[in-house]
Amino acid sequence: MAENKIHPSAFIGPQVKMGTGNFIGPFSYLNGNIQLGDNNIIHNHVSFEGNIRIGNENQFFPFSTVGNTADIPGMDPDFREDGMVIIENKNTFKSYVHIQSPMRTDETRVGNSCYFMPKAYVAHDNKIGNGVILSGGANIAGVCELGDFVNAGMGASVHQRFALGESAFLGMNATITKDILPFCIVTGSPARILKMNKRGMEKRGLDHLDLDYFDKHFKDIIAAVPSEDNYVFNALREFLNKYPEAQRTFVK
Amino acid sequence: MAENKIHPSAFIGPQVKMGTGNFIGPFSYLNGNIQLGDNNIIHNHVSFEGNIRIGNENQFFPFSTVGNTADIPGMDPDFREDGMVIIENKNTFKSYVHIQSPMRTDETRVGNSCYFMPKAYVAHDNKIGNGVILSGGANIAGVCELGDFVNAGMGASVHQRFALGESAFLGMNATITKDILPFCIVTGSPARILKMNKRGMEKRGLDHLDLDYFDKHFKDIIAAVPSEDNYVFNALREFLNKYPEAQRTFVK
Amino acid sequence: MAENKIHPSAFIGPQVKMGTGNFIGPFSYLNGNIQLGDNNIIHNHVSFEGNIRIGNENQFFPFSTVGNTADIPGMDPDFREDGMVIIENKNTFKSYVHIQSPMRTDETRVGNSCYFMPKAYVAHDNKIGNGVILSGGANIAGVCELGDFVNAGMGASVHQRFALGESAFLGMNATITKDILPFCIVTGSPARILKMNKRGMEKRGLDHLDLDYFDKHFKDIIAAVPSEDNYVFNALREFLNKYPEAQRTFVK
Repeated sequence: MAENKIHPSAFIGPQVKMGTGNFIGPFSYLNGNIQLGDNNIIHNHVSFEGNIRIGNENQFFPFSTVGNTADIPGMDPDFREDGMVIIENKNTFKSYVHIQSPMRTDETRVGNSCYFMPKAYVAHDNKIGNGVILSGGANIAGVCELGDFVNAGMGASVHQRFALGESAFLGMNATITKDILPFCIVTGSPARILKMNKRGMEKRGLDHLDLDYFDKHFKDIIAAVPSEDNYVFNALREFLNKYPEAQRTFVK
Repeated sequence: MAENKIHPSAFIGPQVKMGTGNFIGPFSYLNGNIQLGDNNIIHNHVSFEGNIRIGNENQFFPFSTVGNTADIPGMDPDFREDGMVIIENKNTFKSYVHIQSPMRTDETRVGNSCYFMPKAYVAHDNKIGNGVILSGGANIAGVCELGDFVNAGMGASVHQRFALGESAFLGMNATITKDILPFCIVTGSPARILKMNKRGMEKRGLDHLDLDYFDKHFKDIIAAVPSEDNYVFNALREFLNKYPEAQRTFVK
Repeated sequence: MAENKIHPSAFIGPQVKMGTGNFIGPFSYLNGNIQLGDNNIIHNHVSFEGNIRIGNENQFFPFSTVGNTADIPGMDPDFREDGMVIIENKNTFKSYVHIQSPMRTDETRVGNSCYFMPKAYVAHDNKIGNGVILSGGANIAGVCELGDFVNAGMGASVHQRFALGESAFLGMNATITKDILPFCIVTGSPARILKMNKRGMEKRGLDHLDLDYFDKHFKDIIAAVPSEDNYVFNALREFLNKYPEAQRTFVK
């Protein structure tokens, strides 16, 4: 059972609890109701504050921040102070990544095996799935839901309160002000669907599907999702059932 | 009279002066000709350097910076070293917010009750009014003027030397290369006027105005601002008098 | 021979070597196989880690980072751990500037007299020339080549694996998904050529050229670069020879 290695210059508050095998570098600051699992690497100059649960084998690079409040306490009548940031396992948070505490719901949540590049910004109450990639400077405003394997290009910005289906892909500097259907690549400002995320399907081992078919016919597919039993069709139907077009608007 | 609470690991230079009730967290660095008023909260890992005047009840989150120079001394013949950053009261500066020192004028100024979200960037010589909101990653280049209640979406970028009228609203990733008239919502790259900022009028208690009228007729209003006595018309006229169309170009 | 001034709170790893006249401020962290030349200014809260060679007279502002790895070791079969960040002389790195270590090639390289404004992001394996300006929040993804005097506006994003010719100029929030020809100004999302970089030619003392000619006829010039002996024509021809149109696509 590996010991925790904590640099003597790090600030560790009295309520912080942790498992084994964690590394905490110089000048890092952990304060509040924080529980760390095992084998996390917290480099130098990392700042955690608030109610935070972190699993195992995550990595936090210099100047990343977790748990800062999203609002001015006292100014917002619906503000909740009891929310929690939940970060599961095997995630990477590069420099200047910022994960805010929730203020409207129980949790800000990040799943497993996500990779957030420098300056990625995850605001309050986001629910982020597994395998999500946020590129440099991508901005996700509050109360969004990102399905598994969402991939946001550099500088993409998502307005608050939208849902991004699994394997949605956002082009660089894309401006998102509507929901995004699963497996769609959207680009531009405001964003439009460019095509389907063929490479995302391949990467996930969905290559037994006829990828050229998705490439050529995506407008027809999206307009009238076929009832056939197929992973992508099912994902589209489930998303449309969960967020009916009658109540939501989608990037088209 | 509350005492100042300064963590022993903080670096406080010999010229720094402060009132009472201030909090300064671990690893924060304040150096230079700095005066703090009362009851400011300076979290961990904050960096202030230069000539700075800060009022009361401001909050600075981890990795925010105030007062760094905007240029390489010696390289710029017009560079002034005697300028000052002035920050008034009740402002919030989240993580990675950067307020530069002036280099062309006396001041970089931030008024009262502003809220700057993570990564907002306020370059040299900006004059920022009261109640201004800069969302995550918004960039304001040097020598701009932002009227009261300007609201910039995530990733919006404003070119240097422009004026933004009061309650102007910038969409996410909007690209601003002209002045913006008061109470206008602008979006896109390059930005265009989308409509008038009805919600901004309501928030400011201007709801005795016929907001639907502004919504429907904004192009006519802007093309020929009526002479009637009305808060929004007055603001538009004053802005156009201050920055005559003959000398400036506006987002239309 | 000026002594090095290192604040006692700075963390300097055992392998770090340096010349003379360097300044290292409070809470800065230098660890790894690092060599610094002479007269560099490393302000407070700077973080260097990895294999790094830095020349003379560079300046690093608070919360800048150099040398962090670009990927998760073990996850990438082509990952190289032996690469080096090379930074030559007289460069300025403002707050939150991030220079990543290489992972596909020998080097991430920054030439001389570059000026990177707050939040500029230079990913793995970039080769950056001399006199390059990256404005606030500009993002350069991995394995790009930036010629001398490239100038990127605030929030501009460059996709990985592209080449930007010398004195290319990127408008604010420009979205670059192709190569850019030398001396071209590109704007928009996706970017298009707006005109030629007349001001860039003037600044470089190329004002003996007929700048109005470039301004008026740039489309013809780019479509069929003349064979005359002229600095700009030569630069365009060399770029097109190095990256033939048959194999690459260019912003047009």
